[in-house]
Amino acid sequence: MGMGRRHWAIPEGYIPSWSHGPQPQMTSHETVCVLNASDDHAHVAITIYFSNREPAGPYRFTVAPRRTRHLRFNDFSDPEPIPNDTDFASVIESDIPIIVQHTRLDSRQAENALMSTIAYPADP
Amino acid sequence: MGMGRRHWAIPEGYIPSWSHGPQPQMTSHETVCVLNASDDHAHVAITIYFSNREPAGPYRFTVAPRRTRHLRFNDFSDPEPIPNDTDFASVIESDIPIIVQHTRLDSRQAENALMSTIAYPADP
Amino acid sequence: MGMGRRHWAIPEGYIPSWSHGPQPQMTSHETVCVLNASDDHAHVAITIYFSNREPAGPYRFTVAPRRTRHLRFNDFSDPEPIPNDTDFASVIESDIPIIVQHTRLDSRQAENALMSTIAYPADP
Amino acid sequence: MGMGRRHWAIPEGYIPSWSHGPQPQMTSHETVCVLNASDDHAHVAITIYFSNREPAGPYRFTVAPRRTRHLRFNDFSDPEPIPNDTDFASVIESDIPIIVQHTRLDSRQAENALMSTIAYPADP
Repeated sequence: MGMGRRHWAIPEGYIPSWSHGPQPQMTSHETVCVLNASDDHAHVAITIYFSNREPAGPYRFTVAPRRTRHLRFNDFSDPEPIPNDTDFASVIESDIPIIVQHTRLDSRQAENALMSTIAYPADP
Repeated sequence: MGMGRRHWAIPEGYIPSWSHGPQPQMTSHETVCVLNASDDHAHVAITIYFSNREPAGPYRFTVAPRRTRHLRFNDFSDPEPIPNDTDFASVIESDIPIIVQHTRLDSRQAENALMSTIAYPADP
Repeated sequence: MGMGRRHWAIPEGYIPSWSHGPQPQMTSHETVCVLNASDDHAHVAITIYFSNREPAGPYRFTVAPRRTRHLRFNDFSDPEPIPNDTDFASVIESDIPIIVQHTRLDSRQAENALMSTIAYPADP
Repeated sequence: MGMGRRHWAIPEGYIPSWSHGPQPQMTSHETVCVLNASDDHAHVAITIYFSNREPAGPYRFTVAPRRTRHLRFNDFSDPEPIPNDTDFASVIESDIPIIVQHTRLDSRQAENALMSTIAYPADP
């Protein structure tokens, strides 16, 4: 189907350092949601940018044909975890077109807060 | 008027499995808002993508001329309901141009949380 | 400067029917934020679409050169008020390019919730 | 890499005039997140638009190569601070392509609220 773009960017990123409420649904998390509506595997590489050091990554993921994956930045570990309570940004690259959305659930206080936006389609 | 696009995608989707507060306004819900600003009927087909199974649908809706419909994924039933507490994504297709926005009201805790974004216009 | 577009659409619209907290900052409201970065007056006409009746409007506003206006749908009165607790959508048209963003503050419960998105740029 | 655009606009802007919760994470703030994925310095100029006076600025920032900066409007001071509890909008200009996202954390009540959107890419 070829729906979407191969390059996406999310300037906002931040993993709250504490949570409140039942786990794991209410754990504070920062998510990148990837939709692969095609009939091929999507090989995705994510690079993380910081304010005061060189970028980390690439973090590599595969999204199967006709599947979505909602990846939590909290869970990224290879090549290194992303620190809490630190400003970051991300660039998502794929070998085939995908669609990307950014969501945060913040449960630092007793009640959770949500935000979401379609990422920026950054194909040259 | 022909305002909008015929293909839209929303990579984020999640129906919280519990709610808090007066019904039905405060029921946790995930909504796709469709605007048909034209003078013709829009025939809309929505396909739901999951992380670990083949897609569900199409779910079919009609939006009358010069009307908006705010469809709750919670209420989808034909051909099958969408399970709670499960990651999904959606692709919205129409026979004429429409405009699509995605909103979630999450009332799992005592106070509700909101998020919204214009969907991704995915015309080829 | 000519920054922006002349046609915008917001499929989501809903004015909560009650509020909680100090007034007027914490009154539940649905807002359309218009930026006119040009050196000319922008003459803006907003049409409101519903699910079960013909559209209302146009509601007319002027945005002076190099000014922003954050218009609350709650305050629309001419030609008619917009009912609470009712799904609607809006189309914003201007005689010169502007930029439009949609924001809701929902304070129906003790703690407020927020959502925002850039509107859909719908120029033909 | 040249990812992004050189002109961006955010019609919504508002700095809440009070906060609740541990500082500085829970201070109410309005943020513009800038990603510079290139190998050159980005020189960024931000102009602030109001509803009833001429624009303020430009506020000047540099974003180093392969870095992100999450700038809080609350902290802007040169040439003048941005008043609290006042509607504003912003235009972000850069000498090289960048990507811009807008986020607000509102902690006026006991529980925080969040909103976010990719800014409007406004290149002529």
